[in-house]
Amino acid sequence: METKRGLDPEYVLVIHGGAGVINRSSMDADTEKSYRDALDAALTVGDNILSAGGTSLDAVEAVVAWMEDNPLFNAGKGSVFTYEGKIEMDASIMNGIDLSAGAVGGVSHIKNPVKLARFVMEKTPHVMLAGKGAEEFAKSQGISMMDSSYFFTQRRWDSHLKGLEEQKQTPADKHGTVGAVALDKHGNLAAATSTGGMTNKRWNRIGDTPVIGAGVYANNNTCAISSTGHGEYFIRWAVAHDISAMMEYKGSTITEAASHVIMEKLAAAGGEGGVIGVDRKGELTMTFNSEGMYRGFIMPGKRYVGIYGDE
Amino acid sequence: METKRGLDPEYVLVIHGGAGVINRSSMDADTEKSYRDALDAALTVGDNILSAGGTSLDAVEAVVAWMEDNPLFNAGKGSVFTYEGKIEMDASIMNGIDLSAGAVGGVSHIKNPVKLARFVMEKTPHVMLAGKGAEEFAKSQGISMMDSSYFFTQRRWDSHLKGLEEQKQTPADKHGTVGAVALDKHGNLAAATSTGGMTNKRWNRIGDTPVIGAGVYANNNTCAISSTGHGEYFIRWAVAHDISAMMEYKGSTITEAASHVIMEKLAAAGGEGGVIGVDRKGELTMTFNSEGMYRGFIMPGKRYVGIYGDE
Repeated sequence: METKRGLDPEYVLVIHGGAGVINRSSMDADTEKSYRDALDAALTVGDNILSAGGTSLDAVEAVVAWMEDNPLFNAGKGSVFTYEGKIEMDASIMNGIDLSAGAVGGVSHIKNPVKLARFVMEKTPHVMLAGKGAEEFAKSQGISMMDSSYFFTQRRWDSHLKGLEEQKQTPADKHGTVGAVALDKHGNLAAATSTGGMTNKRWNRIGDTPVIGAGVYANNNTCAISSTGHGEYFIRWAVAHDISAMMEYKGSTITEAASHVIMEKLAAAGGEGGVIGVDRKGELTMTFNSEGMYRGFIMPGKRYVGIYGDE
Repeated sequence: METKRGLDPEYVLVIHGGAGVINRSSMDADTEKSYRDALDAALTVGDNILSAGGTSLDAVEAVVAWMEDNPLFNAGKGSVFTYEGKIEMDASIMNGIDLSAGAVGGVSHIKNPVKLARFVMEKTPHVMLAGKGAEEFAKSQGISMMDSSYFFTQRRWDSHLKGLEEQKQTPADKHGTVGAVALDKHGNLAAATSTGGMTNKRWNRIGDTPVIGAGVYANNNTCAISSTGHGEYFIRWAVAHDISAMMEYKGSTITEAASHVIMEKLAAAGGEGGVIGVDRKGELTMTFNSEGMYRGFIMPGKRYVGIYGDE
């Protein structure tokens, strides 16, 4: 199949499964292998769609939904618990063609929050729905709803209890996100992000994931970005949009822009985390100022999976 | 009193009370006068703080709280009703000194949502709280809670019923916001925005007002911005942050940046509304692509109130 973009890759998919204190001493070999296998399988989900000429929007939705279903990641099944021991998930999706976007905040019974975000984008005049209202809308659309028990994982429950006891946790316990960005064969960009949020969060805290411009952004003229990290910093620095804006207004490459925003601005402020991104020419970035980031990318003839900062 | 900034104004306050289909044929003389008087009084509230050397953060909070208390505006008392006949308010505040920010979405019993947003900013590690959780936090802080009846205004209820009947309303009925931006004598910027949202909104829709980067942004290096208009467009275009980013990365003035984003980008997409803004040198903007915008500004020796597009 021919590409319209000369030597550039026909399509690109980049994914992340969260950033934080992730290093070799904090992970045994079996756990490491399970993450690498999961990231690799997620890449295949998207590759199957993109290689067949599917859209970047369909690819990022399917990949993020697959990661939501995998209990290893803090999104969908396997989400962390709130202070009250509940599940409250956030998700978002954005289409670079027309800047259409959808997001949900604080949903508790949605099997795949990213799919609900897409319904919000395509079936309502709104961008962002929250809590019970978002779930009412989901019911009206026949979206899969699950009992709370579906989302339970012992590991996250232990982390919840440990956090309540110690009032302190490692950043790796506290947050985590999944996300995907893609360039398809038609030259279009899309991005999606999903999370269970921060362990033991209170008061219906909403993080950066459903905030368009912070946890997600996609614009065919610039790039598609998905964020992961300490959400409050990503909101205040409007990280995903800032990278897009630096490309638009300064003519920076996606690599330069991501590096400036994550490694300089955010790092100077103490905001830990990272982003994945891709531009319309297929240049991609996986930039993080934390010790590690679960991540990977795939394009025709090239596949990569990484966890630590030095690989 | 001396200013540190030579010939620049010692301080500046800019306010808005919503943008939309606001023209001379849609308003009688008494109504027009009541809006002009209210805008003028709001300016005085902020002027008293800023002229005495108070902070821009205190000024924008006090001005927005005053407008929330005034039933003429769609924020606090006088907020529009949701599809179910309820009140759901959003608000945000941001400090240009350190990019600290606070926001609340979908609160129903808070007398002054902007004050709660400031508590979120200063008393929690979070930026955004929603719905019941935000109200629980408010109770824990001793914030004024009101019975639903406090927020009732006949005019908004009639608009709610009319909307349900006709399934159509004028844009002026549908949304409205209040906001303030300020530069203080210390050279610091701040912004705040508050709204009752869109008449007959459903499913806990959250608009641009509590989305940092969309409805509000403040950064001492660039500008302070408060938005009003069709919120979904302001979210998708990250309007407040985009103006800031164009100043940062392209070196544009606040006037050039606001004009580009509101009159070109948003207008081309059909996104109706406007922004107020001020930069650190005291240059201010009140830019809107709608017929009118309730607005005003004050600085030492100069005071202005406007409603229509041609004044």
